Amino acid sequence: MSIDKLFYPKAVAVCGSVSAGKLGAVLIERLIAGNFKKVYAINPKGKGYMETEGYCSFKDAPADIDMAVIAAPASAVCGILDDAGNAGVRAAVIISSGFSEAGYAELEQEVIAVCKKHGIRFIGPNCAGMVNTSCCLLATLEAAPSPGRISIISQSGAIGGMLMAASAAGSLGIGKFVSYGNGADLNATELLKYLADDNDTSAIAMYLENINDGRSFMEALSYATSKKPVLIIKSGRSEGGKRAAMSHTGSMAGADAVYDAAFSKCGAVRVESLEEMLDVCGAIDSVKQLEGRRVAIVTNSGGPGVLTTDRCEKVGLLTPPPSEALRAKLKELLPPHAGLANPFDITVEGTAEQYGKVIEAVLLEYDAAIVIDIGTPYLKALPVATSVADAAKKCGKPVLADFRVGVDIDAAVCHLNENGVPVLPSSERAADVLANMAKFNKASGKICFDFEEKHIDKDFLLEYESMRLFSDAGICMPRAVFAKTADEAVLAAEQIGYPVCVKIVSPKIIHKSDVGGVKLNIRDEKGVRDAFDALYEIGREKDFCGVIVVEMLNKGVEVIMGMTRDPQFGPVVAFGLGGIYTEALKDIAIRVAPLSKAEALDIISSVKAYKLLKGVRGEAPCDIEALAEMLVKLSELPFVYPDISEIDLNPVFAHKTGAVAADARIILKK
Amino acid sequence: MSIDKLFYPKAVAVCGSVSAGKLGAVLIERLIAGNFKKVYAINPKGKGYMETEGYCSFKDAPADIDMAVIAAPASAVCGILDDAGNAGVRAAVIISSGFSEAGYAELEQEVIAVCKKHGIRFIGPNCAGMVNTSCCLLATLEAAPSPGRISIISQSGAIGGMLMAASAAGSLGIGKFVSYGNGADLNATELLKYLADDNDTSAIAMYLENINDGRSFMEALSYATSKKPVLIIKSGRSEGGKRAAMSHTGSMAGADAVYDAAFSKCGAVRVESLEEMLDVCGAIDSVKQLEGRRVAIVTNSGGPGVLTTDRCEKVGLLTPPPSEALRAKLKELLPPHAGLANPFDITVEGTAEQYGKVIEAVLLEYDAAIVIDIGTPYLKALPVATSVADAAKKCGKPVLADFRVGVDIDAAVCHLNENGVPVLPSSERAADVLANMAKFNKASGKICFDFEEKHIDKDFLLEYESMRLFSDAGICMPRAVFAKTADEAVLAAEQIGYPVCVKIVSPKIIHKSDVGGVKLNIRDEKGVRDAFDALYEIGREKDFCGVIVVEMLNKGVEVIMGMTRDPQFGPVVAFGLGGIYTEALKDIAIRVAPLSKAEALDIISSVKAYKLLKGVRGEAPCDIEALAEMLVKLSELPFVYPDISEIDLNPVFAHKTGAVAADARIILKK
Repeated sequence: MSIDKLFYPKAVAVCGSVSAGKLGAVLIERLIAGNFKKVYAINPKGKGYMETEGYCSFKDAPADIDMAVIAAPASAVCGILDDAGNAGVRAAVIISSGFSEAGYAELEQEVIAVCKKHGIRFIGPNCAGMVNTSCCLLATLEAAPSPGRISIISQSGAIGGMLMAASAAGSLGIGKFVSYGNGADLNATELLKYLADDNDTSAIAMYLENINDGRSFMEALSYATSKKPVLIIKSGRSEGGKRAAMSHTGSMAGADAVYDAAFSKCGAVRVESLEEMLDVCGAIDSVKQLEGRRVAIVTNSGGPGVLTTDRCEKVGLLTPPPSEALRAKLKELLPPHAGLANPFDITVEGTAEQYGKVIEAVLLEYDAAIVIDIGTPYLKALPVATSVADAAKKCGKPVLADFRVGVDIDAAVCHLNENGVPVLPSSERAADVLANMAKFNKASGKICFDFEEKHIDKDFLLEYESMRLFSDAGICMPRAVFAKTADEAVLAAEQIGYPVCVKIVSPKIIHKSDVGGVKLNIRDEKGVRDAFDALYEIGREKDFCGVIVVEMLNKGVEVIMGMTRDPQFGPVVAFGLGGIYTEALKDIAIRVAPLSKAEALDIISSVKAYKLLKGVRGEAPCDIEALAEMLVKLSELPFVYPDISEIDLNPVFAHKTGAVAADARIILKK
Repeated sequence: MSIDKLFYPKAVAVCGSVSAGKLGAVLIERLIAGNFKKVYAINPKGKGYMETEGYCSFKDAPADIDMAVIAAPASAVCGILDDAGNAGVRAAVIISSGFSEAGYAELEQEVIAVCKKHGIRFIGPNCAGMVNTSCCLLATLEAAPSPGRISIISQSGAIGGMLMAASAAGSLGIGKFVSYGNGADLNATELLKYLADDNDTSAIAMYLENINDGRSFMEALSYATSKKPVLIIKSGRSEGGKRAAMSHTGSMAGADAVYDAAFSKCGAVRVESLEEMLDVCGAIDSVKQLEGRRVAIVTNSGGPGVLTTDRCEKVGLLTPPPSEALRAKLKELLPPHAGLANPFDITVEGTAEQYGKVIEAVLLEYDAAIVIDIGTPYLKALPVATSVADAAKKCGKPVLADFRVGVDIDAAVCHLNENGVPVLPSSERAADVLANMAKFNKASGKICFDFEEKHIDKDFLLEYESMRLFSDAGICMPRAVFAKTADEAVLAAEQIGYPVCVKIVSPKIIHKSDVGGVKLNIRDEKGVRDAFDALYEIGREKDFCGVIVVEMLNKGVEVIMGMTRDPQFGPVVAFGLGGIYTEALKDIAIRVAPLSKAEALDIISSVKAYKLLKGVRGEAPCDIEALAEMLVKLSELPFVYPDISEIDLNPVFAHKTGAVAADARIILKK
C-alpha cells in the first residue's frame, strides 16, 4: 500500500489531550504555526483548541481526515486506531510512548494488528513525528526547519530535532523528516525506498543506531544511491558506544566494521558527526557533480592555505602541483611573489578579478576548488565573492569557500551561498565535505544474492571433503589423495610426487598439528610408511579413518581469507596477511559478500601490509589477480551452500604466479 | 633588554602615509577606535590624521613616544628607525613588507643593524602587528578582539587575524597578540618566554610554520608549559602542506613527527585546526584542572549520548561504566527507564534538579562531565542550565555542555558560559577539548642538554670499536674479541665459549654480510680456523685487519633502535620492532633526545606492534625495562659524543630477561 497519505494528507486529526501544555495542544499549535490548513482535534471530551474544532470520535469528525497524529496515553492508542480505521483513515503518526521500548512489546503487537486489519501505515510508536515542508505539514514536537530538498530519516528523535533546529537556524533546507521511533511498521528500509523515488528529495540523510534486516536494507540503500546521495550516521562505533546503543534501543549493534563495509558497498557515505552531515547536506547541490579527488586551493594568505592542504591530504584528497602549462598561465595572471604550487596564493594584494581568473584556470585541471579569502576589517569582501561565484558558475565544477573578515562579510557570504558556492565555517571543513562527496563515486554495486543452492547432507566435512568442495568451486588447493592403508598412501605419494605431507583423517581430531597429526616434508616411500604408522598410533584409539597425502607447497607470502555470517548483513568476507604481526596489529579488512572482482582487489589493497604483496626490497609482486579471483569464489560459497556457517582459508600462499590455499576449514551450521 | 615597552608603551607613533586608505591612516583609526590615548603620526610631510598630530621626525615629536609602528615603504624603514632610535625610542612594530620574504635579505640585515645600534627591540618586518587589550593597544590591521587572558603568537598574520575575528564574534577573550612576520628580532621563542612570565596571560596559543633553533624553542616551551597551558598549530604536516609552507616562508619545514615529539616532550598540546584551538581556548579556564581521562556523559537523549561516547573513545578518553555503588545511587535519583551505564541518560523527562544531582554524583567518580540537553522548541532550558552550573561549581571539576533547542536557549547558553560551564557547538567537540586538555598532563619534561663531552679523534670506527663504545656506555653487547691471527681467534672462541660467530675486520668492507664476511654458528676449533682462512681470502686484497670473534646470541624478539640529528631539534631517537612488517607498515616511533626512563617506556609502548613485546599467544613478556634503559643510554650518547652523526642498533634482541644489541653501527660527522 502506498505511504503517500502519510506525507501528503488532506486533513489531519490530532488525537490526545488538548489541555494547556499537553502534547495534543502543542502538536496543534505546531501544525497551525506551520500553516497546515485542515487540522482537527479528537479526544474523549471532544474539545477543540485554538481555531481547531474538536470531536469525540472519528465517525463524528469530517470525512476528509486521512491521517491521525496520536499523542494519547499508550493504553488508548489501539482504540483510537480502530476508530480511525473504521472511519477510513489509512495513515498514522504514533508519538505516544510506553510500548516495546518500555517493556510492553505485546501492546505494540496489538497496535500492529489493529493497523493491519484496517490497512493503516504508521510511523512510531515512541517517535518524534514527521514533517513535509512541501505541504506545510509539521506533525512533530521538534523545531520547524527551513524548507528545502534534503530529507531526513532518524532513529533518534533528539538527533532529528537537532538537525531540524540547525536547519531552522541556518541555510540548510529540509524536505521531509521522519523520526520512526520503534519502527513497528515503517522503518529505515521502507522509508529509504520511498524517499529514493521522491522527486521532492535531492539527498537523504539518515541517523541509525541499528538495522534488523541488513540484506533488505542494503537493497534499498543501493537503489537509493543509484538515484541520489545518501549520508548515514551510524552510532555505536566504539565499545562504549555499543553499550550505550544497546541500553538505548534494547537491540544489539552489529559489528561496526561490517556496517562500514555494507554502506560502502551500497555507495552510501558514512559520516561521524552531525556537524559533518550538516556541512555536506548544506553543500550537496554544489558538490554532487564532483568527479575526482584533485583539489585546487586558491587563497590570499599562506597560513590558511597550508592548513587546508594538510587537511586535504589527511582526508584522502589530492593536492598535486599544477602542470607546467597551467603554472605558466598563472604566472601571467599573478604578481611575482604569488604562490603557484597549489595552494595558489594570490597574496594579500590579490584582486577580485585575479580570484576569478585563477579559479577558471585551475578548474580546467582540477576536480574542485576551495577558495579562501581572509580579508581585513576595513576592506570589502563582496567584490571577491561576486567574482568567485561568477567563475564557479562558468566552470560547473564544485567550488567551496571560506570567507572571513571584511566590512561587508555577511553580504559576501550570503552572495556565495545563494550562487552555488557554499561557504563553510572553515576551509578544513570544506575539505571534509569534498572528501565525503568523493566517496559517492566508490559504490561497488554488486547487490545480487541469487545463486543456485546446493545442500550438504552431513554433520561435518572431513578435511579432504572440504578440499574437494573448494577445488570444485575453482579455488586452487594442493593436490591431495585420501588413503586408507600404508600401501595406498605410498601409491598416492608417487602419483603426487615427492616431497609430500601426510595428515591424519580422524573426525574427532580437529587440531591435527597439536597432537602430531601432520607429518611434513616426506621425501620417500619409507617416510610415507613411517608417517602412516605413526598417525595410525595417534588415531587408533579414536576414530582413525586413514590419511591424506598432500602435495608440499612452495611457500609464498602468507595471507588469510575467511567467511562468517553477520547477524545483520549475512555472509561477510575477511582478508589479511598471515603471521603474528598482522594478528597483533589487527590488520584485517572485511567486506560484505558476494564480492565483485573490483571489490576483491579493493579489500586486498586496503590492508596496511598490502605493500608486502606488491613486493618490498626489490622483490617481484605476488599474483594479486589470483588472490582476488579466489576471494570472489570464496564470497559466493555461502550463497551456494547455505549449510556452511564459517570458512577459513589459512594460510593461502600468494606466489608470483597463482595462489594456493594450503589449509582449509569449513564449519557447518548446527 | 626588556620587551615590556613593546606591550606597554606610553605613547605610540605611526610612521607611514596617512592619506585616505593608506596603512598609516588605517593604523591610526584602529588605535583610536581601540581607545589608546597617545597616538602621533610621523611622515615626511608632518601630516596629522583625525585627532592625531603629525610631525616630520621623531626629534620634533613629543618625548614620551616609546614605540614606533612602521607602515612606510621598505626603503624608508631604516631611516625611520635611526631617527626613532636617536630620539630614544626602544620598541618598534615593522608592518612594512619587502624584506627577506621578497628576496631582500640585505635590507633586513640593515634593519637589524640599526636596531642593534640603538637597542631597539622589534616585531616584524612583514607582520600584521600586535595587540595588548589590557592597555587598549591595537597596533594591527586585524580585527579588534574581545579582551581576555588568552595570548596569541602567530607566524601568519592571516591566521592571527582569523583568531582575533573569532574572538570579536564570540566569547573568547584575548590578552596579547603578536604576528611576528619575518621574526628578524623577536621570534616565537622569545615571545613565548615573555608570555610565560606575563601575569595577564592565562594560556598561550601559537601558530607556527617553522622553527629555526629547535633546542632553544624547546627550553622556552617547557618553561612556558610549567606556568600555563600552551597550544600549538604547526602547519605543513602533509607532503603537500610542506611544499606550501616552503613556498610561503622560504624555509624548509622539519620532519613532522619530530615536531610532534618535541611539543609533546615539552608538555605543549598540538592541535590541527583553528576551530579546535578556539574550542580549547574558549574552555581553558574551566578545563585546566582536568586530572584524568575518565569522562561521564550526562544526557537527556540517547542518540547524542551514543555519538559522544563514540567520539570520546576515538580521541582517547575513557567512558567506563559506573561502580555498583554509583549505579545504586543513580537508580534512586532517576526514573526506571533511565540509562545508568554511561552515558547517563536521564531521559526526556529528566528535570533540572535531576541533572544537578546526577552531575554531583558522577563527578565523585569521574574526572570530567559532558552534559547534553537537547530540548524541545516549546520548553525552557534555563532552569536546567542553572542547575548544571551550580552542580559544576560545587564539584570543581571540568563540566562542558552541549545545549540546544528551547524557548530561552540563548539565555541558557549564556548562563552556562558565564558560570564556568563552557558550551561547545557539539558534544563531540566538547570531547575533543577534553582530549586535548588531557595531553597537558603528559609532559615528560627532561629538557637538559648538559653532558660531559668526549671527542673521537678518528675518521671512522671499526665494528669492535663501536661495540666497545656502547659497552662502556652501559649498552649490553655480545661478548667480542678482536683477533689478528687464527690462533688468537681460537683462543678468543675458547674464552667466549662455543658456538661463536666470526666477522671480518676490514675498514673498506662496510656491508660484511653481502661479501660473505660473517660466519655464524661456529662450533669448534676447526670451524674457527676455516672461518679465519675464508675471511682472510675475502679481505686480503683490500685492508684485512683481522677478525672479531663474537658470542652467538639467543634470538629474542627483534627490535631496532636508532639515533639521528634533526636540523631543527638535534638528536632524536627512533624505536620500532624489527622485520619486514614493521618496515612496510612504518611502525616506528620517534622522540627527541635525551630520554627519561618514562619517555623510553612511552616510546616503546607507542608502536603498534608493542603487543608482541608484551607477549602474544600466551608467551611471557619481553624485558621492557631493559629495552627502556638501553634507549635512555642511547639517547645520551649524541650529547656525550658530539662527533657521532648517526647510530643504528639493529637488531636488538629483547629477551625475557635483558636485551642485547646484536649489531651496531656508528656514523661519525664528516
